[in-house]
This record gives sequence, structure tokens and C-alpha cells, in this order.
Amino acid sequence: MVKYYIGIDLGGTNIKGCIFNKDLNVVYEQRLSTEADKGSEHVLNRIHKLVTIMLNNTGLTNTDIACMGIGVPGLLDINEGVSMFSPNFSDWENVPIVKWFEEKLHMPVFIDNDVRVNLYGEWYFGAGKGSKNVVLLTLGTGLGSGIVMDGHVLYGATGSAGEIGHMNMYREGRPCKCGSSGCLGRYVSALGMLRTLKEKIEGGHYSIICEWVHNNLSEITAKMVSEAYDLGDTVAIETLHETGEILGFGLVNVINLYNPEIIIIGGGMAAAGERILQKTRETINSRALKIPNEKCTLTTALLGDSAGMVGAAIYAKQKLENNM
Amino acid sequence: MVKYYIGIDLGGTNIKGCIFNKDLNVVYEQRLSTEADKGSEHVLNRIHKLVTIMLNNTGLTNTDIACMGIGVPGLLDINEGVSMFSPNFSDWENVPIVKWFEEKLHMPVFIDNDVRVNLYGEWYFGAGKGSKNVVLLTLGTGLGSGIVMDGHVLYGATGSAGEIGHMNMYREGRPCKCGSSGCLGRYVSALGMLRTLKEKIEGGHYSIICEWVHNNLSEITAKMVSEAYDLGDTVAIETLHETGEILGFGLVNVINLYNPEIIIIGGGMAAAGERILQKTRETINSRALKIPNEKCTLTTALLGDSAGMVGAAIYAKQKLENNM
Repeated sequence: MVKYYIGIDLGGTNIKGCIFNKDLNVVYEQRLSTEADKGSEHVLNRIHKLVTIMLNNTGLTNTDIACMGIGVPGLLDINEGVSMFSPNFSDWENVPIVKWFEEKLHMPVFIDNDVRVNLYGEWYFGAGKGSKNVVLLTLGTGLGSGIVMDGHVLYGATGSAGEIGHMNMYREGRPCKCGSSGCLGRYVSALGMLRTLKEKIEGGHYSIICEWVHNNLSEITAKMVSEAYDLGDTVAIETLHETGEILGFGLVNVINLYNPEIIIIGGGMAAAGERILQKTRETINSRALKIPNEKCTLTTALLGDSAGMVGAAIYAKQKLENNM
Repeated sequence: MVKYYIGIDLGGTNIKGCIFNKDLNVVYEQRLSTEADKGSEHVLNRIHKLVTIMLNNTGLTNTDIACMGIGVPGLLDINEGVSMFSPNFSDWENVPIVKWFEEKLHMPVFIDNDVRVNLYGEWYFGAGKGSKNVVLLTLGTGLGSGIVMDGHVLYGATGSAGEIGHMNMYREGRPCKCGSSGCLGRYVSALGMLRTLKEKIEGGHYSIICEWVHNNLSEITAKMVSEAYDLGDTVAIETLHETGEILGFGLVNVINLYNPEIIIIGGGMAAAGERILQKTRETINSRALKIPNEKCTLTTALLGDSAGMVGAAIYAKQKLENNM
């Protein structure tokens, strides 16, 4: 009996879903808006609707599906299948995702952190393929990360291993939502990089970007900074170089502490590429331990925003097989 | 047929050896000076002599021994059984330890990093017993560390995972032998702590310790700093508090990155106990991610300098069983 797998990537804006065959090749892919502001029950129904559409359009039924994996942002209890808290969702506390879906769909359901399912995707089918020691950093609005060491994805005592975004970089730096300050994520995420740029502009430095947004600094995007960089804009160049350097210091610690073969930069900021990563490499090469650094490659993600769906399916498949 | 295990802890000053029974209880323990300055062949012969003494004094022969584990300081290729480099040993480069002993003793021999065998010891029989997520920091002359995550000891791509001593704490700080500067080990090891103290004294601050050593600052020991602390010496108090605070910032990163259930402080500096750890705890509690921190205990090691021997035996036993 041929079985299929469902992978779901739950985001704040969109729910991305995919049915994979037994070799994890794409059979059918579908997106639906999350409507995260309408509360947890509504979002669960949206995911359910997406699954129903996918099943209907492929002529499959729930008995054809071996299991379903869902990548969920925020704090999870993966063993209990509960999403404890997610910052970008309304009315979202202790949501029993697994129980809800297993009752509706009558198939095994597994959840994991959204970044970690991205990691599974990039590890099995993307830039980390074939490696046993992988660090994925997603530089988007915030900084997420997931880690494979010695062939195992790291979870830790409370499932929150690898919070690289909360590495302390300055004793007293920018305040962070976590209660500390000077966390890496406050500097190298898109928001962090834009703050660095704005501080320079507000400090009296001229940037061509000010003209593009008619001095409405809240309209500046990460993409604009890269565009200004390519035009030789000094403020944009300084911003991306400083961002790259602090990322480099963070990755020195990542190399010295995790000893990865590959560090994969994903998320929207990865589009800035060498504009950021040049300084990152320079810093790593002058600071990281030599032998671990010689064996470590810094690269950008390959799968883009489809990593989460296939990763969620891989994760669920593994959980199912290990439980058998 | 009852089998025994040998665990060896190779140090710069002493070689500590022990024969364990199948339940890893001590059968016979023996020490011998290392004579590290006389070259690698001499040191290997010293270890061999120690093993011979232990076998003779217990009436056992090499056929009674299931395997031997050796904890070795410095850089290793554990798969090839080669000690590539060890800073405190003369004429010590690419020493084929495993091959040398297997030819002499006709038993399976395994080597691992000295701190990692300490970790195996504290994990199985010491402060980390029963935990699946353990970080061991040995604060001696330098800072060593070993890590267990999700029930696996971490190695990484080149076997150097967990170099917590080379976590960058200051962009431009004290120079480190690794080529970088501002590494954690330059502040919280015994040498680092003593340097902090000496900088204060050289900066014109009075400490009672100056009288104890007749102003010969090179004679100051870590123990003296604790003694002066207990007498209310301001410089000693400031030194241990500053050391504790920077250790705290390092452990904030350890908690956020590794999510351990327990952090074990071993090595000679552990004797300073709460004189250092009070500030460490304060820093952790105000800075680390809340949920991981709530599940994490900071404590001192239990096995003292016998952790390495039993750990080396545990490690060898595991390697043997996994290879079978």
C-alpha cells in the first residue's frame, strides 16, 4: 500500500502545505492565508481546510496518508503536541494541535518548531545534504536557528537548544524581548540591521534611501539597503558591513561551540548574500579556532520557503518510524 | 568470563590509572609521575609501566581486560587513535597512542579528550547522573568543557565541539593563544582570575595577599584569593565577583545555546564555590532565557580528580560495545 506524507509550514501570514510521496517528492502543494488574528480555533480550521483541499485535489483520503508534520512558530511541547505560546498569533496559548488534528483527521500528527522543520528540509534535501553537523540560521524579521550535531537534531532539556539569536554580544546592548540585552538577534535580523541603518541616519548621516522613502524611515526595507549598497551608498555599506561583522563574531562562537561542517544562512536576509557575508567571513577567519574553521563552510540556503514543508514531512516520517 | 576495564587519565604532572570491574567499581588504583618533559616515547612507556604495575598487583593479565580508555589533553584524532598535539608535553606531535598500546598490550584501546572523559565520569557517576543534557566546565589552569545533549556526548565535525573556553566575550579583550582575543577562558580560568587580581594590584589597589607573597605577585595562588575573600579583602572580593559575573555571561550563552539540565563546575577553581558562583547565578537569572534557565541547575563536580579515570573506562566500554 503506497503511503503519502503531509508537511505543513504554519506562518504568521500564510499556511504552506504539501503532500509528498513515499520518497518525499512533491505530489501537490497549496497555500492558504493564516488569518492569525482570528484566534487559534480559526487557524486550526484553516490548516484543516488546506489539508482537505489537498486531499480532494489529489483524490487521496486520510487513509492514504502515513502521517502529517506541522512546523509551528513559538514555544512548543513537542512530546505533548501542544503549542504553548506564539508571539504573532492572537488567542494562542496551550493549543493542543496534535490532539485536535488526530481527532479530525485520524492520522498520526507531529509538531516541531518552525525553524527546526526548516533545518530538517535543508539538511535532507538542501545545502546541508550529506552533512552530519549542520547549523541553520534563518535571518528574517528575527533570527531563528536549528542545529544538527553528530547526526542528531539538537533539542535539549526543554526543547529550546540552539537559541543563537539570544547569544549575548554586548554586556549592555539593545534591549531584547527575552529580558536581556545585547542579543545577537537584535543586530543581525532584518529588524536589527534596519535599526543600525536608522541609527546612522538619525545620527545625521546621509543615505540615498532617505529620498526613496521620502524620509519616512519606517518604510525602509532590507532589500532597499542592498540596492543602496550596490549604488555605493556609504551608510548602506557601513550598515551591511557592521551587520556582517557582528554576525561573524556570533558565528565564531557557533564554530567554536558546535563545530559544524556547514553553516547555512536562510531567511529573507540571505538575499543580501556577500554584501553581508564578506565581513562575516573575514571575522570568522581571523577569530575562530583554526581546525574547526577549516572544516566549516558558510553558505546560503537552497530550498527557500519550501524547506519548512518538506522538513515537516521528514520530521513526521522519522517520528513515526522511531515510534514503531 | 569476568572482564575488567582500565581507565587512564593522562595529565601533565601525573598519570592516574585504575582497574574497574564489570560494574565499573574500583578494583585497584595507582598513580605515576608523567615526566612529560622527556618526550612522547617516554610518556607512553610510563603509562605502560603503570598498567603493568596495576596488573601485577591485582594478579590480572591482559586477557582479563576487556579494553582500556585513556583521557589525553590536547588535540586528538580519536578515530585514528592519534594525539596530534598537546601543549604541555615535549616532543609530542602525531603520537599514535592507540596503535602503540594495542601492539604492547593486545587489548582494545580508545582515547578521548581529557575533559570529555571527565564528562563521562561526572555524567555516569557524579553530579550529572541521570541527566540527558549536561555541560561540564573544568576551571583549572585553563578552561575545558564537555557536553552531553539529548543523551549523546557532542563531538562535532573535527571532534572539538564545546570549546566554551574560546567563546568571545569582548570584541577586543585579552589576547588568547588561539589567535583571537577576549575568549572566556582568559577570564574565568585560574590564570585568568589571577590576572584580573594582578591588574587590580598593579593598578594601585591594596590587597592583603601582597603581604602573604612579599609583593612577589607570581606566587599568588587561586586558593589565596579565596582566603583573602573570606577575610573581607576588597580586591579579592572584587576579583571573584567580576570572575563570577563574566562566567555568568558565558553560562547565559551556554544555557541559551545548549539548553542543559545541569551545568557542572569542576577543576581546581570549583573550590572557590559560591564566592564565584553567587555572581554567576545572579547574572544567569537576570539574563538567560527563562524556561531553559528554570530547568537548569548550576552545581560543582562530585568526583574530583577521579572522574577522568572512571570516565575513560566508561568511554572505552561504550566504544567497545558499539563496535561489536
